[in-house]
Amino acid sequence: MRVDVLTLFPEMFAGVFGSSILGKAREKGIVSLNAINFRDYAGNKHGSVDDTPYGGGGGMVLKPEPIFRAVEDLLGQPTGEETLEPSGEKAPVRAPRIILMCPQGETFTQKKAEELAQEDHLVFICGHYEGYDERIREHLVTDELSIGDYVLTGGELPAMVVIDSVTRLLPGVLGNETSAVTDSFSTGLLEYPHYTRPVEFRGWKVPEILLSGHHANVDEWRRQEALRRTWQRRPDLLEGLELTEKDKRWLKVLQEEAVVKREKE
Amino acid sequence: MRVDVLTLFPEMFAGVFGSSILGKAREKGIVSLNAINFRDYAGNKHGSVDDTPYGGGGGMVLKPEPIFRAVEDLLGQPTGEETLEPSGEKAPVRAPRIILMCPQGETFTQKKAEELAQEDHLVFICGHYEGYDERIREHLVTDELSIGDYVLTGGELPAMVVIDSVTRLLPGVLGNETSAVTDSFSTGLLEYPHYTRPVEFRGWKVPEILLSGHHANVDEWRRQEALRRTWQRRPDLLEGLELTEKDKRWLKVLQEEAVVKREKE
Repeated sequence: MRVDVLTLFPEMFAGVFGSSILGKAREKGIVSLNAINFRDYAGNKHGSVDDTPYGGGGGMVLKPEPIFRAVEDLLGQPTGEETLEPSGEKAPVRAPRIILMCPQGETFTQKKAEELAQEDHLVFICGHYEGYDERIREHLVTDELSIGDYVLTGGELPAMVVIDSVTRLLPGVLGNETSAVTDSFSTGLLEYPHYTRPVEFRGWKVPEILLSGHHANVDEWRRQEALRRTWQRRPDLLEGLELTEKDKRWLKVLQEEAVVKREKE
Repeated sequence: MRVDVLTLFPEMFAGVFGSSILGKAREKGIVSLNAINFRDYAGNKHGSVDDTPYGGGGGMVLKPEPIFRAVEDLLGQPTGEETLEPSGEKAPVRAPRIILMCPQGETFTQKKAEELAQEDHLVFICGHYEGYDERIREHLVTDELSIGDYVLTGGELPAMVVIDSVTRLLPGVLGNETSAVTDSFSTGLLEYPHYTRPVEFRGWKVPEILLSGHHANVDEWRRQEALRRTWQRRPDLLEGLELTEKDKRWLKVLQEEAVVKREKE
């Protein structure tokens, strides 16, 4: 997979693109990650890429030309045109996804990460405290994404988040030792509690059942604790999940316990 | 504000902590940002910070000791103990927030960013594809945060996201030119469309109204477009918002238009 990021701060990406899973995925040749400064496409002496908004008001707005030019340079052709094969047929080149990181975008989810992991080429556009000229939204991008309901200084960190979550899904990126971890969200439940050595730390002990060696009991305990945590913290995740009869009985127990607890208080 | 991040990948942070708004906030002395490798607190020759889970199964679990030791070293005292003034009174030292980045955490929002911006000292704990020993959660951390419902390879990017959104709220960090931008989420609505020069780009024109010079009309158009975009993309944000009678009439128009459009199709 090829990933290009258009940004005014390419130096932000070196540490993240070079370390850990992303660094290894690059070394293995599974993904190429490039941060490109779209100021290089400003087309004026001052390298200016933004201007004041029409209609007045504070803030600056990113101009359309530099971003259109940068994307077209990456794709080797003006956007919107078709490549023709010598035979006159349309070339079977898959158009890349051109993704605008912005607070107005669709909220990014694991499902979207799985969808993007099927692509060959992703282009991210990262603005930085400015707004984007609306024509970029309307005529250039294929996706607008937001990573959550909070305000950030730019699209760079959100782009890194999306790239990390997509890259780890590519075949060959995660080794067996890591892919074996039961991910939250992929089972639909939050994870059960984990414990490792020492068996007692400052008087706090590992639950007996995990030391028992009874695998079936351990599995049941873990399922119950995952259900408990999800029910307590993110009950919204339980909706639409396929639960067994056993799961449902356990959730009923948790609900009854909570009622008794409230009545005591 | 002092911000310490415990991580096994401190090199991931240099680019982000050194650039743009975070870099400037550091230069101005408004925030100190430190990435600390908690492997330095492993307490064994191999620098081992994780181990296999009790109860079996795949994956590795971060051990409690290195993380407890690292946090206590940062705070200069064992956690849970009180500092006594020479007089025997409790010192008025505000305890720092110790924040675990994990998928099981509370979903991070702008409101949480505003809350954390009131603190003097934040400590972030970032695991990396391993789980955390449950005793870290139970006996050390004050907050567990998740930035969204997607799986990442570690807590590093989420910590950067939280740090960026909190730092930009600190007094003196944003200049007037940037703070004047109408942020999404701070008004409760998604932003209206922005336009800047050129007035015509590849045949796509800026809306006439923005060129009219009628400020009241421009303001009304922007409010309507912000409502339209929010209604179309994130209707959940409209719930609980205080809307004027004019806003409500406009939303009714949008709804009626949508009904007519659906009937035509």
